[in-house]
Amino acid sequence: MAKDPKSARPRAETPKGFRDYFGAEVTDRAAMLAKIAGVYHRYGFDALESAAVETVEALGKFLPDVDRPNAGVFAWQEMGEDAKPGDWLALRYDLTAPLARVYAQHRNDLPTPYRRYAMGPVWRNEKPGPGRFRQFYQCDADTVGAASVAADAEICAMLADALEEVGIPRGDYIVKVNNRKVLNGVLEVAGLLDHNDPSKFELERGIVLRAIDKIDRLGSDGVEALLGGGRKDDSGDFTRGAGLSSWQIEKIMRFVVAEFLINERLTHHAEGAKEAGLPTEAVSNAADGGFTTTFGKTIESAILWNAEALAFLADLVRESETGREGVEELRIIKDLLAAQGYHADRIKIDPSVVRGLGYYTGPVFEAELTFEILDEKGRKRQFGSVAGGGRYDDLVKRFTGQEVPATGVSIGVDRLLAALREKGRVASSERGPVVVTVMDRDRMADYQSIVGELRRAGIRAEVYLGNPKNFGNQMKYADKRGAPFAIIQGSDERARDVVQVKDLMLGAQIAANATLEEWKDRPAQFEVARGDLVARLTALLADQG
Amino acid sequence: MAKDPKSARPRAETPKGFRDYFGAEVTDRAAMLAKIAGVYHRYGFDALESAAVETVEALGKFLPDVDRPNAGVFAWQEMGEDAKPGDWLALRYDLTAPLARVYAQHRNDLPTPYRRYAMGPVWRNEKPGPGRFRQFYQCDADTVGAASVAADAEICAMLADALEEVGIPRGDYIVKVNNRKVLNGVLEVAGLLDHNDPSKFELERGIVLRAIDKIDRLGSDGVEALLGGGRKDDSGDFTRGAGLSSWQIEKIMRFVVAEFLINERLTHHAEGAKEAGLPTEAVSNAADGGFTTTFGKTIESAILWNAEALAFLADLVRESETGREGVEELRIIKDLLAAQGYHADRIKIDPSVVRGLGYYTGPVFEAELTFEILDEKGRKRQFGSVAGGGRYDDLVKRFTGQEVPATGVSIGVDRLLAALREKGRVASSERGPVVVTVMDRDRMADYQSIVGELRRAGIRAEVYLGNPKNFGNQMKYADKRGAPFAIIQGSDERARDVVQVKDLMLGAQIAANATLEEWKDRPAQFEVARGDLVARLTALLADQG
Repeated sequence: MAKDPKSARPRAETPKGFRDYFGAEVTDRAAMLAKIAGVYHRYGFDALESAAVETVEALGKFLPDVDRPNAGVFAWQEMGEDAKPGDWLALRYDLTAPLARVYAQHRNDLPTPYRRYAMGPVWRNEKPGPGRFRQFYQCDADTVGAASVAADAEICAMLADALEEVGIPRGDYIVKVNNRKVLNGVLEVAGLLDHNDPSKFELERGIVLRAIDKIDRLGSDGVEALLGGGRKDDSGDFTRGAGLSSWQIEKIMRFVVAEFLINERLTHHAEGAKEAGLPTEAVSNAADGGFTTTFGKTIESAILWNAEALAFLADLVRESETGREGVEELRIIKDLLAAQGYHADRIKIDPSVVRGLGYYTGPVFEAELTFEILDEKGRKRQFGSVAGGGRYDDLVKRFTGQEVPATGVSIGVDRLLAALREKGRVASSERGPVVVTVMDRDRMADYQSIVGELRRAGIRAEVYLGNPKNFGNQMKYADKRGAPFAIIQGSDERARDVVQVKDLMLGAQIAANATLEEWKDRPAQFEVARGDLVARLTALLADQG
Repeated sequence: MAKDPKSARPRAETPKGFRDYFGAEVTDRAAMLAKIAGVYHRYGFDALESAAVETVEALGKFLPDVDRPNAGVFAWQEMGEDAKPGDWLALRYDLTAPLARVYAQHRNDLPTPYRRYAMGPVWRNEKPGPGRFRQFYQCDADTVGAASVAADAEICAMLADALEEVGIPRGDYIVKVNNRKVLNGVLEVAGLLDHNDPSKFELERGIVLRAIDKIDRLGSDGVEALLGGGRKDDSGDFTRGAGLSSWQIEKIMRFVVAEFLINERLTHHAEGAKEAGLPTEAVSNAADGGFTTTFGKTIESAILWNAEALAFLADLVRESETGREGVEELRIIKDLLAAQGYHADRIKIDPSVVRGLGYYTGPVFEAELTFEILDEKGRKRQFGSVAGGGRYDDLVKRFTGQEVPATGVSIGVDRLLAALREKGRVASSERGPVVVTVMDRDRMADYQSIVGELRRAGIRAEVYLGNPKNFGNQMKYADKRGAPFAIIQGSDERARDVVQVKDLMLGAQIAANATLEEWKDRPAQFEVARGDLVARLTALLADQG
């Protein structure tokens, strides 16, 4: 990448970790975001667009997984006469930190609660990798100033609606809900949280949370080792454990394998139903309910899951007040959602959802797409998470000193769009233009008249504006543009007041499937009277769909 | 603005020169841009979205009116293991410099010519002022790789169409076209441009161009003074003149007052028509044609203007080859546009258009809105420029060494939106949600069911999620949200399976116009059966429009 010393020319390159989006990449995303905005709007959320640039002071240091101040953000020193040496500006790294600033700044003019949505790019000054960029889109919805968990329930319902609106059918997604308070309750019960001295078990708690987060990769044996004496990995490296006692480990492991245990309860429940002589269908529904892969087949099993999960969690944290509070909040959320017809086939209580961000204080949510795709090594795997969020009651307090309850969700726009592409559910609006070729350079005005007429009829159309000398180049251009048709009018056609229409879609199909002889006949080209052109193309384009 | 020393709290403030956009400010702009994108798409332009961040090297130093390198942009040094000390990144200051980089980088994959549009924020590190922000939107369309002035003509026609599409009616805008080559021809004729040594008259030429640009403010006497010995302003400050001789000044002044002189030619033409016995209407049309304020009344006068302007300019630069070339290009543009029905009532040849940016090499355009508004001092003035552009054949060459012809236009999004608001032509999609109040905290699920039903019927609706204790606060909230209706269901209504509907729009009208007695009757509130609510609100909202 070294610059050629002989040349003073700049390199035509995006900076590392940045990229350009072309054509349908831009318009498909815009169309998807417009649909999501429609759902958010219907839920009473208002649009907000804050600037890309904030003071470093206002942004704060909430970027996940970053210990150094301002690391992870693009920041620079403010210049100018009025600027003080300490004034630093930075590009926003998410849409939540700016919302907290906006709400604190404009709180006297904004309604309370304030429901807002925001869509736009955010920036992270991180090491880029494959598929990992330093600028990407987020799409957030938050409710500020509502302490009620009805606000959390509303966000979950809206997220489910938004996913369906953009084309993820019911059954292909699941919104998982948990509550940080339940997790804290588990830690309390296991003797790892002292409300009188929250910093007391900080180290152990950190190790425990990181261990829980690794269940998918290490399995329950691995997590157990990390909670106890430590774990040696395949390469022989040793990871220090939290050094917990066996009863502490047991408490926590019940939480870690909660999904399995809830499923056992459901099976038990089903057997009970059988013994009680309930109809077979209800029995098998109940038995089905537990496993993620087969889960969600029926509303009945979905209803059972959320009730069983609550009962299980209530058991687990019954000795912790915080834990009981968390379960009660989840119960209210469940009931509010159930009253609107959202059951665990769409919105599911799931203890495995932890969410990395430090600032969550209550309910947390995550939307996963459950259909399978092939990963880069050809293995099947679930598509996975496309959105996440939760309650964060302390972000605005940074500015005002007053606690302002808030909750919200952020959709990973690029991942959701990739999922829609994967499922063939992007109805791309991109069709190439009809290309009018230039046979006679002096008759440019005539060709312009043709495209003018086509455009007025709503048909995307353009005149070839390159050097018209080489007709082959014009046809290559039309191909590259994805043109459905090329229009040709030379002096002969002009004299007879007709044009030639080349059907490039049909032509491409023939070229792909036919012999040279067939191709020579060029059946995909026909003549049409100049006056009939617009009507004819309108009909043909409608046929192509 | 000094931080309170007793407080460690960050200030909740946008950085200087940045602002937040709320609700309709966001959605109205998005709706306007979607309409413009529709026109651009129909013309065969493809969307492009490049990152906000570019290398300083790629951006170059094309920012207008800035002499210091990198002044005017927000820039910072790249960090990380691979970064070299010289690697600087910056926020883009327009959408043209990134386009040049994109085209140079991807030219083998892009069609030639490449028509693209781009919409998004740009950033300028300048001193902010009233209505002058450091982040603002641009909306650009450019054709890269087309040497033909047919590309320039197309941009002008598309700009006119886009203005009409967003709601500026014909007659309220004018797209003005000029050519830098004509201006260079004038300078050559006046002895201020030596093609063998273009740097020779640089100083004088700079003074001359700045003087021409001041015609609106200083009048022709002021400009003449600046071309000659210099000018003393009202405060007594002396501005040095270009020191031109009287024949040079005369040549240039003919160009400066071209509009007046072209109008004289048109009047003369009209008199000729009268003498030749043409119908009175044609005569008065011709006479009308010249003055901007009364201009554009009829197609006939519009056709005459462009022809007369060309004849005038041809006269003016007949001794300069460059000048003649420029006039010929304008003639082709005029003919191409005329063939599609665009005359000087929409797209007008106007020698007064200079455009500040250094990089223009041929045709330049500017779109002005001609309707009058009141300025901050209550004086009438024309709304003025909302878009500008032109041909810039050297921008891509910076990267590749090869000359790549390009032309394009940039719309000032915020100004155009302000114009639409001024004319009452923003059909805002923003209506407040129907607010369902909370009379009984335990019946939240019922209230959520109501909004769920309303939303499924496409009605924007929400439950009040603040503290429901004080009912007055709920009504204040509904007012602040611009809610058309509030829904109330207490235990009495619940028992009778009805809801109360409060018509807040009607209520507000009554409150504004009626006596206290009338208000007390609350005629804007009525009862409706729970089962009829959706149908009733649907009908009422349709009535409200």
